[in-house]
Amino acid sequence: MVHNGIEYAIMQLISETYWLMKKGLGFSNDQLHWVYHEWNSGEMKSFLLEITAAIFLQQDDRSGNRLVDMILDKAGSKGTGKWTSQDAMDLGAPVPVIDMAVSMRDLSALKEERIKAAARYEAIRTEGFSDQVTTVHQLRDALEFATIICYAQGLAMLHTASSELAMQIPVPEVVRIWRGGCIIRSGLLEVFLKSFTANPELPNLLLDTDVAALLKQRESSLREIVSLAAKSGFPASALMASLSYFDNYRNAQLPTNLIQAQRDLFGAHTYQRTDTTGSFHTEWNDFQ
Amino acid sequence: MVHNGIEYAIMQLISETYWLMKKGLGFSNDQLHWVYHEWNSGEMKSFLLEITAAIFLQQDDRSGNRLVDMILDKAGSKGTGKWTSQDAMDLGAPVPVIDMAVSMRDLSALKEERIKAAARYEAIRTEGFSDQVTTVHQLRDALEFATIICYAQGLAMLHTASSELAMQIPVPEVVRIWRGGCIIRSGLLEVFLKSFTANPELPNLLLDTDVAALLKQRESSLREIVSLAAKSGFPASALMASLSYFDNYRNAQLPTNLIQAQRDLFGAHTYQRTDTTGSFHTEWNDFQ
Repeated sequence: MVHNGIEYAIMQLISETYWLMKKGLGFSNDQLHWVYHEWNSGEMKSFLLEITAAIFLQQDDRSGNRLVDMILDKAGSKGTGKWTSQDAMDLGAPVPVIDMAVSMRDLSALKEERIKAAARYEAIRTEGFSDQVTTVHQLRDALEFATIICYAQGLAMLHTASSELAMQIPVPEVVRIWRGGCIIRSGLLEVFLKSFTANPELPNLLLDTDVAALLKQRESSLREIVSLAAKSGFPASALMASLSYFDNYRNAQLPTNLIQAQRDLFGAHTYQRTDTTGSFHTEWNDFQ
Repeated sequence: MVHNGIEYAIMQLISETYWLMKKGLGFSNDQLHWVYHEWNSGEMKSFLLEITAAIFLQQDDRSGNRLVDMILDKAGSKGTGKWTSQDAMDLGAPVPVIDMAVSMRDLSALKEERIKAAARYEAIRTEGFSDQVTTVHQLRDALEFATIICYAQGLAMLHTASSELAMQIPVPEVVRIWRGGCIIRSGLLEVFLKSFTANPELPNLLLDTDVAALLKQRESSLREIVSLAAKSGFPASALMASLSYFDNYRNAQLPTNLIQAQRDLFGAHTYQRTDTTGSFHTEWNDFQ
């Protein structure tokens, strides 16, 4: 199930890079084939990039066009991504890129509403897309960064499930099996296998030195791509959710103290303190 | 339950604006009080902004500091946000800002891991925060935009539940009740009540003329803030998820055709076509 959740997330990420190149850079299907073919090497070598490259070459007998352009943009699903998100929420193990991929498949199905909404709002803009070479390079690195985040989330969920539910999941063995052959097989799993072999109880790949090095080299590219997408109106939900996960996970201090203050004020839900242990409740001025 | 899901999402949004002002602009608690007090007017007048303004003034007897600074940044939850997300996924009614708020509460609880991660990665940067007046103005409009998106998602979920589960939920009446007094009461509900009174079967507030006008005036501010947060490493997960929802919902065409191609290639899950009805499967070159 978690394998399929990660699969949903990576597919959503790839589709977002596709649109930025097709609609932003104006790439043809041949160019898209070439880019994904190029990306499918080194630690990015993966089944999903391999089939993505191939898809752009497939002819459609009925129309004479490339088939990808004749396929309706309404996603179906069999439920495995949804179950991953629902179970992750029950475990308290956050997998926001998977959640986002599930919600965006559901949103894609609202095609008739989307057509109505498109008439009310401005279309995507392509002015920020001047330098093709730089943008393609940033997209590659952004995709690799975000893909690592998807695996990190899914494997952290397995780690949590293993301890919370006493399932004794051998995470290194899971990585080894995925590497052997499945839809999310990827050169990245070699890197992760090293991390988990050295530390089978690693709670999150983001805490591993080698993974951190990969991420740090690619971090600025993801930031640039998210900024470009935000300013130009391109859908980049999974890219943004990947960055969100990273920027929350790597901050020792978050503004969640305010949420705990709000919850204590309106619901007496109590809070913990930074200077001592225990649970506390305050009679808030003007709101007793 | 959906009320509480929306509440989670708005609280997460407010906390993100708080951090951008506190850590980005260097605002004191007095300044933060003043900003939220200012924002608590017009259609933004709301219980959550009112208590947020008050929270920044609350003294802590134990430390002599403001209490908000002594509260630990680990969020608790009673489960209602989680149930909203889980049920929305079962309904196929996307509520990604609520999903994100739930996942980010869970992530905040991983404080020990976050402290370890902070040592591995760079801290947030504050160079992009030169112009206080512009940034505060953009933050206000970004918050209003994103807050509207939260209500739109929650109410669209009720609309879907009403028809899918034959619940006959009187959505205009729900809005009227929320307006009367609850944690998510807000001047915005007056606007929404007009929309739903004119069209009780409105599937999504984003399709309403008045709501579209509010959003369009504030859209560029949210884009600027998301870009600023992405580049400087500030957690902006709910702000980004709000923009993601908007940028997927308002696009008649999405790159989901690629996802359907991938699904048909590796799982024969079939696809629909743009030029005719029915379900189709292709024997993909090199992958049969």
